[in-house]
Amino acid sequence: MFRKLLTYEEAKILIQETFKPKPLGTGQTALLEAHNRVLAQDAISKLDIPPFNRSTVDGYAVKAQDTFGADENQPVKLQVCGMVSIGELPKVTVSKGEAAEIVTGAPIPEGADAVVMVEDTEREDDELNVYGSVTLNENVQKKGSDIKKGEIILRSGTILGSRETGVLAALGMAKITTYLVPTIAVLSTGGEVTEPGKELLPGKIYDINAYSLSAAVWESGGKPVYVGVVPDEKVELQKALEKALVSADIVMTSGGVSVGPKDIIPAMVDSLGEPGVFISGIAIKPGKPATVALIGQKPVFSFPGHPTSALMIFHLLAKPVIQVMAGKQPMEMSSIKAVADRRMFSAKGRRTFVTVKLVLDETKGIVAEPVETGASGAITTLAKADGFVEILENQQFIDADEEVRVYLFKEKENF
Amino acid sequence: MFRKLLTYEEAKILIQETFKPKPLGTGQTALLEAHNRVLAQDAISKLDIPPFNRSTVDGYAVKAQDTFGADENQPVKLQVCGMVSIGELPKVTVSKGEAAEIVTGAPIPEGADAVVMVEDTEREDDELNVYGSVTLNENVQKKGSDIKKGEIILRSGTILGSRETGVLAALGMAKITTYLVPTIAVLSTGGEVTEPGKELLPGKIYDINAYSLSAAVWESGGKPVYVGVVPDEKVELQKALEKALVSADIVMTSGGVSVGPKDIIPAMVDSLGEPGVFISGIAIKPGKPATVALIGQKPVFSFPGHPTSALMIFHLLAKPVIQVMAGKQPMEMSSIKAVADRRMFSAKGRRTFVTVKLVLDETKGIVAEPVETGASGAITTLAKADGFVEILENQQFIDADEEVRVYLFKEKENF
Repeated sequence: MFRKLLTYEEAKILIQETFKPKPLGTGQTALLEAHNRVLAQDAISKLDIPPFNRSTVDGYAVKAQDTFGADENQPVKLQVCGMVSIGELPKVTVSKGEAAEIVTGAPIPEGADAVVMVEDTEREDDELNVYGSVTLNENVQKKGSDIKKGEIILRSGTILGSRETGVLAALGMAKITTYLVPTIAVLSTGGEVTEPGKELLPGKIYDINAYSLSAAVWESGGKPVYVGVVPDEKVELQKALEKALVSADIVMTSGGVSVGPKDIIPAMVDSLGEPGVFISGIAIKPGKPATVALIGQKPVFSFPGHPTSALMIFHLLAKPVIQVMAGKQPMEMSSIKAVADRRMFSAKGRRTFVTVKLVLDETKGIVAEPVETGASGAITTLAKADGFVEILENQQFIDADEEVRVYLFKEKENF
Repeated sequence: MFRKLLTYEEAKILIQETFKPKPLGTGQTALLEAHNRVLAQDAISKLDIPPFNRSTVDGYAVKAQDTFGADENQPVKLQVCGMVSIGELPKVTVSKGEAAEIVTGAPIPEGADAVVMVEDTEREDDELNVYGSVTLNENVQKKGSDIKKGEIILRSGTILGSRETGVLAALGMAKITTYLVPTIAVLSTGGEVTEPGKELLPGKIYDINAYSLSAAVWESGGKPVYVGVVPDEKVELQKALEKALVSADIVMTSGGVSVGPKDIIPAMVDSLGEPGVFISGIAIKPGKPATVALIGQKPVFSFPGHPTSALMIFHLLAKPVIQVMAGKQPMEMSSIKAVADRRMFSAKGRRTFVTVKLVLDETKGIVAEPVETGASGAITTLAKADGFVEILENQQFIDADEEVRVYLFKEKENF
C-alpha cells in the first residue's frame, strides 16, 4: 500500500494497467430479453435472405419474354395456369404463354422469371390480358439478394437496440450469445448514515450514495448489488466487504476515505487481500481521497462521501471499467458545448472538475453555471447538477463567456 | 370506418383527439427498482436536511467569540470538555472557554456556534491552543440549510436517473409513487412469416417486426407483450387480437394493411369494437397504408410489414402515445444536423421520410446517405439505417449538400 498522490492521467493509466479490464464472459440470452445487451459473437447468417426468389408485388408470375411488346393498346394474352399461395412452395409451373396468380412475398414458381403487377392486367376466367411488358427479374426479389448465407450481419460488441434485434430475428435467432452483465456491490459507510425507509434517529442523516451509485451502475450497463449502509465498525465492515467481494464482480464503497479518525476504509480494503490498494489519493478536485484497490481479481473503488463528488468520480474512473467488463467499448461521457457563466478557478496542481447547471440564455445560448459543491448544499447540488466542466492542471481558470465542454450526468433531451 | 387519406399533420391531430392519451395510473415502486421510472407525485421533504446543525470539518466545537483575536503568535487557550460522536446526540455542552472534539458530520453540541479546524489547533491533554479565530457558524452546516421541511424537491413527471434517485434517498423515501408502465401487445401477421427459433419451412421467411417493435417499445418506456406471429386466417387472427386487447393497454400489428387479397387487418380490427378504425391510410411515404383504431379505450396501431417503415411509423405515431400513457412528456426524437449526400426526392403530395445512414466525411462533416428502402434489401436497410430525413408535402426535393435534420432511431454516441 502506497500513498503517493497520482495525477489524474497517471491514475487512469494505472487503473487500466492494474485491472486489465476485459469482458467477464458470455452466456445465452433470449432475443426478446436481449434489449440493450451486448452481442458476444459475430452474427453470421445461416440462410440466404430471402431464402427463395419472391414477388415484390401482387400480380401474375410470367416468363418476361412472353410480355415483350405488350402495351395499353396491344395486350399480350396469357393463360392463367394456377395460383401461388404465400408461405408455401408453388404447386404450379409456368410454361410459355402462361401466367400464375401471385401475391407479394410469395415464391416465384418454376418457369417464371418476372411478375406483372395486377394493375397492368385484366382477367376473364383463365384468360389474362397483359397491358405492359416486364423485364427479366422485374418485381422479383432474388434469393440471397438481401443477405447471403455466411455473411456477417452484426459484429460482436454491438449493443442491441430495436434495429439490431430485428436483424437478428430475420436470421431466425431466438437465442443469442451475449456478454455477461457485471455485478457491482454498492455499500455506504459512516456512523451517521441511515438507510432510506428506516427511522431517522437523532444525529443521523439518510444515505444517498448507495442509491445514486446503484442507479449509476444501471446507467453504465452493470447490475448493482445493493449492500446498503455498513456501520463504521471494523468487524462489521470487514465482514460486509468480504461478502461483497464474493457476491459481485466489482465493489464500490463511499465515505470513510478522508483522514478523520473514523476514515478506516483504505486500510481496511488493503487488508482484504493482495495486491491491495494501489491508488490512495489522486490530484483531483473534488475526490482527492479516492482509493482504488485490486483484491484478488476484483476491483474495489472507494469514493468520498459527498454525493455529487462520488457520482463524478464514478463516471471518471469506475464507469469505463464496468463498460469493458460488460463487453462494451468504453464510451466518453456525453457532452455538450456551453458558455461559462462566470470565471471558474482550478485547485492549484489538481485536475479540477466544476459541477455546473445548464441554463438556456436568449443571447448566449447554453450557459454553464457553477453550482456550489460544499457540504452545505449536498442534495440541492445533486438535484441541480447537469454535469461538470474540466480544468486542466496547468490552467488557472476558465474565464467568463469562454466556451466550455460540459460532461453530462445524463443525456439532456431538451437542449 | 372511413377511408379518407389524411395528411400527416391531420393524422397526428386526430390521434391526439381520439385517444386523448393520459397516464394510465400510479403505483408504489421500491426506489432501488425505480431507475428510469417516472415519478407520479411531487417529492416533498418531510424533514429538514440536515436535520441538525452539523460540523463540516474535523476539529473542535467552540463559542466563536472565545476565538476572537487568536492568531499564530497569540493562541487562545480553551479547555476540552468532551467529544461529540458522529451519528448520535451530543452528550456534552460547550460553555464559555470550552471546546468539544468533533468530526465531520457530527451534530454541533449545545453552547457551541462554530468549529475550529483541527489543523488550527494544538492539544495537550485537555488543554487546547487555538491558532486562528472563527466567525459565528463557521464550519457549521445549519439545520435545513440544504433542504427545508415541506420543500418540493422533485416534480411529478421527473424521470429517475442516478441523481434523482440519490435525492429521493436523501429524503428517506425507500418507496415512491410512480406512473404505471403501459403494456403493448405486439403481433405480426402474414402467411409467410415464421417465428425466429422455429424451423423455416419452404416458402417462409423469419418474422422481424414483432421483435424490432418489442425492442422499440422498451426504448419508449413501455413494456412489450410479445404475441408473435398470427396466421393470416380470420378466426385465429380475431382470437389473437381479442386476447391482445384484454392483455395489454395498446395493440400493435404489422403486415396485412395493404390492398392485397390477404390484407385483412383493417376490416378485422374495425370489427373488434367501437369506435373502430378512424385512420385508414395517411399521405406519407413510406407507411401510406398505416391504420389506427380505437377499440373501447384501447389504441390499436397497424403498421405496414416493411421492417424499417414499421419502425419509422412507430416512432412518428405510436411512441408519443406510449410516452404520455407512461407519464412522460412526449419527446421529439433525437436528431442531428447533417449534409445531404445527394438529391432526395419527395413522393408527390405525401410527407416523405427518407431513410438515411450517417457517414463522417473529412471535409463535409456528417453526411446523410439515403439507403434503399424497397423490398429487395429489407434487412440490410434495417441494419444500416441510422435515421430519416423529413421532406414536407410542398417540397419537391432536398438538394445535394443541403443541410438536413436527421431523426435518429437511436442516439448515435460517436457523432
